[in-house]
Amino acid sequence: MLILNKNDIIQHVNLNKNLIPIIEEAFISLSKGLVMMPPIMRIDIEKYHGESDVKAAYIEGFDSFAIKIASGFFDNPKLGLPSSNGLMVLLDSKTGVVKSVLLDEGYLTDTRTAIAGAIATKYLSNQNANSVGIIGAGIQAKLQLQAIMLVRKIKKITVWTRDETKANQFIEGFKDLDLDLHVASSCKELASLSEIIVTTTPSKKPLLQFDWIIKGTHITAMGSDAEQKNELDPQLLKHCDQYVPDNQLQTSVLGELHHALKQNIISSKEKFNELGDIINDPSLGRKNKEDITICDLTGTGVQDTAIARFAYNLCKTNNLGINI
Amino acid sequence: MLILNKNDIIQHVNLNKNLIPIIEEAFISLSKGLVMMPPIMRIDIEKYHGESDVKAAYIEGFDSFAIKIASGFFDNPKLGLPSSNGLMVLLDSKTGVVKSVLLDEGYLTDTRTAIAGAIATKYLSNQNANSVGIIGAGIQAKLQLQAIMLVRKIKKITVWTRDETKANQFIEGFKDLDLDLHVASSCKELASLSEIIVTTTPSKKPLLQFDWIIKGTHITAMGSDAEQKNELDPQLLKHCDQYVPDNQLQTSVLGELHHALKQNIISSKEKFNELGDIINDPSLGRKNKEDITICDLTGTGVQDTAIARFAYNLCKTNNLGINI
Repeated sequence: MLILNKNDIIQHVNLNKNLIPIIEEAFISLSKGLVMMPPIMRIDIEKYHGESDVKAAYIEGFDSFAIKIASGFFDNPKLGLPSSNGLMVLLDSKTGVVKSVLLDEGYLTDTRTAIAGAIATKYLSNQNANSVGIIGAGIQAKLQLQAIMLVRKIKKITVWTRDETKANQFIEGFKDLDLDLHVASSCKELASLSEIIVTTTPSKKPLLQFDWIIKGTHITAMGSDAEQKNELDPQLLKHCDQYVPDNQLQTSVLGELHHALKQNIISSKEKFNELGDIINDPSLGRKNKEDITICDLTGTGVQDTAIARFAYNLCKTNNLGINI
Repeated sequence: MLILNKNDIIQHVNLNKNLIPIIEEAFISLSKGLVMMPPIMRIDIEKYHGESDVKAAYIEGFDSFAIKIASGFFDNPKLGLPSSNGLMVLLDSKTGVVKSVLLDEGYLTDTRTAIAGAIATKYLSNQNANSVGIIGAGIQAKLQLQAIMLVRKIKKITVWTRDETKANQFIEGFKDLDLDLHVASSCKELASLSEIIVTTTPSKKPLLQFDWIIKGTHITAMGSDAEQKNELDPQLLKHCDQYVPDNQLQTSVLGELHHALKQNIISSKEKFNELGDIINDPSLGRKNKEDITICDLTGTGVQDTAIARFAYNLCKTNNLGINI
């Protein structure tokens, strides 16, 4: 049994193009129904503004599968600790024996989430889209932006977040790149300047309205991963040209789709092509240059299994970690 | 972060009376509603006759909580491996930071399950009950018997299992004790000889019928922890004097109660006192010497949190484990 810590893992797993096919393969298996992925387990500790989620998925034919714990404790910054934490456990598919505990402190979750954003952008945005608007200024805001740069040649970045100081700090982090950098005064302004928009907040009220979005825009909404979270006006889902969930079962209860269903704006009978369907057959993706597309990411256990296996194999090959 | 392995843990955690109040306290919190315990997560890998369950519970006021992975892969014995495996992760309740990974390989699950059997026997069997019938001859059969001996002075043990050779081997394990030992030829015979009965099998068909049970018997059914498993004829639940679930929400979907509800033998509106209610107020337990009582154990996340904390604290105090 191999114990890996974050330092071991970051030596070999980074936000780069190598990870894209790994996560794409996981999404294809998910959409083809070749996985056993149970509903997310959630432990809420309201008293401390904390939550721990457990995700897991077995992908047919894979010799191991992951069970992942990801925690978000939102008072931690006051204590000088990061909000996010977690680990992944890799088990042998044939025997259930624990092969590895990956003490990644949420690093692999952050990485596979950003890669999903790159994949959404790759299949749904216009090829020549070069302006990105990022809503939020946390870790995922930064990683989503870096991930998009793996698949599109970006020239212009606009950021909006509630706290303008944080928006300015965020932009500072990109000043060494030859990019046109803006802090928007509103989400509406941001939308008017961006061909690709990523929402990365824990907002409980919609931040983007349909009539602000310019033709041809692709939106990745990745902030909502719980019932009460909501970043897009549900009308946007109705009026866009294509809505793509990572996993419709999940977005129906946790993602942007959840709110559109609840308000009867979209029928629960409607079946959407998932991200994995489009990866498998890209002709199912963007149809026209003018289309407005949305990808709704709630985070799936198959991504965890894919990245945990990838990290484990690389670390093992390189003799990292502690054998117990 | 402290990594503990099974060898560390077994030095300080054993099936003894000290654990009874630890697990009792957990059951009381559960029945009082002072816990956040999500539904069990289950990953089935049918191809390999394997399953991994995830259980978790936060108990109000506790500074840490556990998330537990328990696997059962039933082809493992053919490979020379135990069927059961697993680990527990202990997280800080205020920050979500991982305090410990307990690589117990299922040992703590086995132990807390046996202690629940001791608690059920303590509150529900007659004080002077001295004959036990054990159905099944696996690890839990042995541990349940040892656990019962913590709370009742046992003189006679009867065992039944499908494979008579295994029943004889099982009985052999107790021959050094001054006990009357029997292998029964049927569950009916076993029932006629036992004041306390424990069912410990993965049976999918009822093993015990109501009219076989002698007056005053207490039955602990601990084998059923999945939809399809069923050890007691549902009529037994209807006609017994007292039915006690560990957690009615769970026994309604996974335990013996599940089958009685499905067959409309018991109404889903009926509310039973749970084991924790009875620990909290023992007058709610056995009323008369002649009563037939049943305790339905499906295994709860609060037991995992309680025993993980207990093991962690003892191992830490004794400087065991590896700090990472």
